[in-house]
This record gives sequence, C-alpha cells and structure tokens, in this order.
Amino acid sequence: MNPKAPTLSKGDATRTAILHQALELSSELGFEGLTIGVLAGKVGMSKSGLYAHFSSKEDLQCAALDAAADRFLEVVARQALTAPRGLPRLERLLTQWMHWERDEFAGGCPFIVAASEFDDRPGVVRTKLAEYFNTMIVFIDKAAQIAVEEGHFRPDLDPRQYAFEFWGSMLAYQQFLRLLEADDAERLLHSAMAQLNARASA
Amino acid sequence: MNPKAPTLSKGDATRTAILHQALELSSELGFEGLTIGVLAGKVGMSKSGLYAHFSSKEDLQCAALDAAADRFLEVVARQALTAPRGLPRLERLLTQWMHWERDEFAGGCPFIVAASEFDDRPGVVRTKLAEYFNTMIVFIDKAAQIAVEEGHFRPDLDPRQYAFEFWGSMLAYQQFLRLLEADDAERLLHSAMAQLNARASA
Repeated sequence: MNPKAPTLSKGDATRTAILHQALELSSELGFEGLTIGVLAGKVGMSKSGLYAHFSSKEDLQCAALDAAADRFLEVVARQALTAPRGLPRLERLLTQWMHWERDEFAGGCPFIVAASEFDDRPGVVRTKLAEYFNTMIVFIDKAAQIAVEEGHFRPDLDPRQYAFEFWGSMLAYQQFLRLLEADDAERLLHSAMAQLNARASA
Repeated sequence: MNPKAPTLSKGDATRTAILHQALELSSELGFEGLTIGVLAGKVGMSKSGLYAHFSSKEDLQCAALDAAADRFLEVVARQALTAPRGLPRLERLLTQWMHWERDEFAGGCPFIVAASEFDDRPGVVRTKLAEYFNTMIVFIDKAAQIAVEEGHFRPDLDPRQYAFEFWGSMLAYQQFLRLLEADDAERLLHSAMAQLNARASA
C-alpha cells in the first residue's frame, strides 16, 4: 500500500486484484507454476491484457513477492509494532506469525514456497526473496535488542542467535502444522519459544 | 538398496541410474518439474522407454522420494548409528545432516523442496513424504531417549520437544546457508545445538 495514494485509480485496483489471485496461485502451485497464461485464466483476462501489467513471468513473480511482503507487513509486522516494546512485542509477533502460517493462505506461506524454489536459482527473484528474508530476520533481531533495552532480556544476549532460533521454530511449526498435521504443533512451538525467552531473560 | 539382492540385474541398474538423475532434477526443478518428458531428455531414453519403469508422473515422484530416503539413510542415519549411543550419536547425526544439506545436492535437499510443494496437495506423494518426515523425527526422538538411558540427558526430558527444536534449527540452517548465503550459518547452528544439548543435560 502506498501511503501517498489513499484512493486507488482503476488501473491500480485492477493490478491489486490481479496480484491477489497471483499470490493465491503461487501459494498453491508454486512461483514456477505462476505463469501469465495460468493467471490470465484465473482472472478472466487475455494474456495480452496481463502483459500490459507484467512484462515477463519474472516480473510477475517479483510483483507477487512484493504483494506477499505487503501482506506480511500488514498482518504480522505492523500488528507486532502496536504491542508495547520488548517482550510483549515479541509475543505479539509470534501470535500474528502463527496466524499467518495457519490461516492466511490455503496453499501455505508463499515465502516458504518461494524459498525452496529459488534458493538455487540466481536472478532477480532470488535476490528480492533473500532481501525480504533478511528484513524479517533483522526485524526479530531488532525486537530482541529492544527487549534488552527494556530490561526484559539480559544485556549480553546475542540478538542474531535469538533471531535464528525464533526463525527455526517458526519453520518447524509450519511443517508440523501443514505437512505432518501434528496435533501438538502449537504446543511444541509455544514450549520452544517459552524456553528461548527464558534463556534470553536469565 | 535391497539387502536381498547384492548384485543388480541390468534392469535394476538402469532404474538406479534413472532415479539418480530424477533426484538431481527434482532437487533443481522441484518434483512438479520432474516429468517423464524432462527426465527422458536427461537420461537419453524415449518417453515410452521410461513408462516401462514408471507408470505415471506420480509413480516417478514416489520413486524419486524413495531414492532420496535411501540416500538419507546411507549418508545420515546409518553414519549416525556407527557412533556410540547417546550424545555422541546425536552429534554425529548433526554433522552428517549438515553435510547432507550442504554437499549432497546441487539444488538443495529434495525433502525440503517436496515439503513446500506437497504440503497442500493430498495424495500418495504427500502421504509418503509425511511418513518419511515422521520417521526422521522419530529417529531424533529415539536418539534423545537413548541419551537419557545413557545418563547424558536428564530423565524428565521431553524427547519430542527435543526433536522439534533439532528439526527447526536444521531448517533454519538450510535457509541461512542456501538462500541467504549467511557466513555465520554454521556458527548459529552449532550454538543453537550446544544450547539445546546443554538444556537437555541440565
């Protein structure tokens, strides 16, 4: 969302609607399955009509990643920032992130889909994806640093190590929940996070 | 590998060679990219020749997963079992698993590729994949239980919680290493595992 443009032009609204479908498709079929042809069928436009919005498949994949990042910002990061600084913010981040993995996409988190597709394919999509991942990891790192400033975490905490372990538990949760359909996915995640926060506080 | 058949027939050898290529392809292109047509081109056989070995794309995907599991068993699990029971075995498991994520496949771990592709697609491939994941998780769980028996870990350890956190750290390591090309991926993983084992021992 562009804060400078509170009202969308018709062209912007069309693009937003197209990207919404593109994101659902990439969640279900993968970003490699997200072709101009498949998307045209889904949104009821001609392929040439779509080429007016996206110059190539790669351009479309990048736009879908940007749309995923906008949605993550809205659903997870901004919500976390409404919580008080420090540990309450990290706890809100966890809650919103769980909601993201569980409820936001029928086919699962598009970032996780993209990660396994692009980690070995150099190019603009991979570069953009790695930038978004690093931004999210830095977000956790910064939130942990703030928890140190607030006196919730110990002064010698390694915030990057904290971010690595937070990240790993979220990835494990996502697999236990979606692929394994494990009844105890939520309990395991909460227990891992409680331990992580206890160690960071001690 | 079938222990009852120490010598391979010509048909078995051909199938093994085909599956080796299938595994490389699925690592690079994903299991959805692993079609009879693409594989035929790679191994220099006709499509009809390949249909003599695999009745469908799904059959081929399942065979490639079985081949990945055979290789994981050989490279990771069996090597871990040569280490002494308890903590040394868990440490060997970690070392071999890191080698697997880093060196075994140009395109990255085929299980991680498959996980994001099939977690929302019910069918025989997803069922087989979930079985292999559960087998690996139970392997870690059992190894942690043995560490309790050996007196290396505390008696009230929750071995499934241990397996969840081990799993999460391996997933984070894989992403930091491959997608993010983070210089400190190995250090972060070793530190997370040292903490996990220290907590399990205390």
